[in-house]
Amino acid sequence: MPGGARAVVLLTGGTGFIGEACLRRLAHEDVDIHAISRRGEGPLPERVRWRAGNLTSPESVSEIVAQIRPTHLLQVAWIATPGVYLESVENLSWLEAGLALARAFGEAGGLRAVGVGSCAEYDWSWDSFVEDVTPLAPASLYGRCKVAMAAGLQAYAKAFGFSAAWGRIFFPYGPGDAPERLIFSVIEALAAGRELETSDGAQARDFIHVRDVADLLVRLLFSDDAEGAYNIATGDGVAIRSVITELALMLGGLTQVRFGARRAQTAEPARLVADMEKVHKKLRWRPEIALKDGLAECVKLSNLSSGDALGKP
Amino acid sequence: MPGGARAVVLLTGGTGFIGEACLRRLAHEDVDIHAISRRGEGPLPERVRWRAGNLTSPESVSEIVAQIRPTHLLQVAWIATPGVYLESVENLSWLEAGLALARAFGEAGGLRAVGVGSCAEYDWSWDSFVEDVTPLAPASLYGRCKVAMAAGLQAYAKAFGFSAAWGRIFFPYGPGDAPERLIFSVIEALAAGRELETSDGAQARDFIHVRDVADLLVRLLFSDDAEGAYNIATGDGVAIRSVITELALMLGGLTQVRFGARRAQTAEPARLVADMEKVHKKLRWRPEIALKDGLAECVKLSNLSSGDALGKP
Repeated sequence: MPGGARAVVLLTGGTGFIGEACLRRLAHEDVDIHAISRRGEGPLPERVRWRAGNLTSPESVSEIVAQIRPTHLLQVAWIATPGVYLESVENLSWLEAGLALARAFGEAGGLRAVGVGSCAEYDWSWDSFVEDVTPLAPASLYGRCKVAMAAGLQAYAKAFGFSAAWGRIFFPYGPGDAPERLIFSVIEALAAGRELETSDGAQARDFIHVRDVADLLVRLLFSDDAEGAYNIATGDGVAIRSVITELALMLGGLTQVRFGARRAQTAEPARLVADMEKVHKKLRWRPEIALKDGLAECVKLSNLSSGDALGKP
Repeated sequence: MPGGARAVVLLTGGTGFIGEACLRRLAHEDVDIHAISRRGEGPLPERVRWRAGNLTSPESVSEIVAQIRPTHLLQVAWIATPGVYLESVENLSWLEAGLALARAFGEAGGLRAVGVGSCAEYDWSWDSFVEDVTPLAPASLYGRCKVAMAAGLQAYAKAFGFSAAWGRIFFPYGPGDAPERLIFSVIEALAAGRELETSDGAQARDFIHVRDVADLLVRLLFSDDAEGAYNIATGDGVAIRSVITELALMLGGLTQVRFGARRAQTAEPARLVADMEKVHKKLRWRPEIALKDGLAECVKLSNLSSGDALGKP
C-alpha cells in the first residue's frame, strides 16, 4: 500500500458459496473489509462492514463505492443458481453491474481489482487450458458474459490506472456448495440409501476446495504484479467416477451406484483440467486441501446437517 | 430475411472514414438504410435516412432503435482521432455506448449485427494473426475496449438470439482517410516538396483499401452463418518503405525521402499481416483493389483537393 496505509477491501457476493469463503480468508488479513448485500447483512458481521445495496443498480453501486473508497476490489457477485445460471438473461445484468462497479472503483481511486470468471470461458474443444494461450470460446451465455466482463475489467483498469487480474475457477466444492451440485447431491442420495444412476463418469475435472479457491483469489488480490487471467484450480484431473466412488466408500453405498446408466451430456468434454504453470510461477501458490480430505469434510458436514442446511459450514 | 421482408439496416459512424464507405457500399443493396449522427445529417441523404441522436446516451439510442426496428446493425462509430484514439478515455464511452446499442438492438428484435474492431486486439508478439487462434492481448486502451466490445456483442447476441460477427480491420487507407495518417501525410509532404524523414520502413503491414473494407463488412453483415471474428484485410504484407517509395515514384519525389532518419517506435512489430483463410473459406471473399491502384487514387484525389478537403472523395 502506498504510504503504508491500511488496505480497504470491497467484496461483492459475500453471501454466496465462493464469496463467503473469501470473506473468511480475508478475515485473517490486516485489512478493512466491506461487503454489500441487498439486506445489508451477511457472514462475519463482527469482522465485515456490511452495507445494503443493489449491485445491479449502477447509481446505488457508484454511491456506495464513493463512500467506501476501496483500495482493493474482489468482485465475486454473479448469478450462480444451479441448473439456471448458464443461460439466464440475468447474466447480462451481472455483466452490466460488473462494468459499472469497475468504473465506480476506478473513479473512486481504487488500486487493485480481481474479478471472478470460470473455465467456461475457454474453448472446450482444446485439451489444455493455459491462461494466455488457449482461445476463449464460451458455449454458454454465462461464459460469454464472463469473457466480456474480464475484457471490460482490463479496459477500465487501463483507463483509470488500476491493476487488475481475473480468476478462472474450475470445479469448486466444499462447505456452502449448493445441494443440487455434484458432491452434495451424491452424498445426499447415498446417505438416503437411494440408487444413483450416473454416466460412466470417465470425464476428468479439476476439483478445487472452496478454501483453496478463496486462498488463491486473496493471494491474487494482494499480488503486486499479477495481471490478466489466472486459473483457479489445482492442475489435477480426477474422473467424476473416482469422486463418486470415494464418496460411496466413505458412506458405504458402493452398490447403490450404477455407472453408465445415463449417457454423459454431449457438451461434456473428456477433460477439463487447468494448466497451473502461470499460477506456480507468478504466485508460487499450491493448493492445501487434498480432494480426499475435502470430500470427507463434505460427508461430515452433511451428517451434521439437516437437508436444508446442507453444505453450510 | 424471414418471409422475404426487406432488410432494415442501421449503421453508426456513417460520417466517418470507414462508415461512409460502408454507406456507399450498402447503397447498392436492396435494403433500407438508417444512420445516426449528432446533427441528423450525413452523406448520401437521398439514399440514407439520417436521424439526429447521441450514440453515447443509452436512452437516446434505445429510443431511436425502438423506432427504426432494424433487422441488421453495422456498428462502426468509435473514437478514431489520429494521435489520440489509442489511449483516450473516450474509448470507455464508446464501449458503454456500443453495449447499450447491442442491448437496444436485441430488445427491438434485431437479427444480425456486425461490429468493427481492429488488429490492435491481437497479441502483437505473435507472428501470425488467425481469428480464433492468436491470443488477444491489446496494448492500448483502444484495443482493450474493442476486445471488451466484441465479447459483449457475443453475449448480447446469445441472450437475445441474434447472430453476430466482428470485423478486425488491419490498415485501411483510401478516400476519406485522415490527412495526419500515413498515406496522405506522405503524399502531402512529397507534393509540397518537403523532405521526408522516416524509419527504415521495413515493417510489413496489411493495407486494405477502404472500399474493400466496406465490401467485406457488408458481405459479413448479410452472411447467414459467419459468426465470431473475421480479419478485415488482404493477407498481403507490404513494407511501409515500399508504400512510400511507390508514392514517391508517382509524385517524382524519391530524393526527398530519407529512410532510416528516424527510429521505428519500439512498440512497432516487424509484421502485422492477417491470416485470411477464415474469410476465404467462410465468405469466399477476395480484395478487389490492388495497393498500387489504391495509392494512385489517393495521389489523384490529393491533386484535386485543397489541403483541408484532403482525402475526401
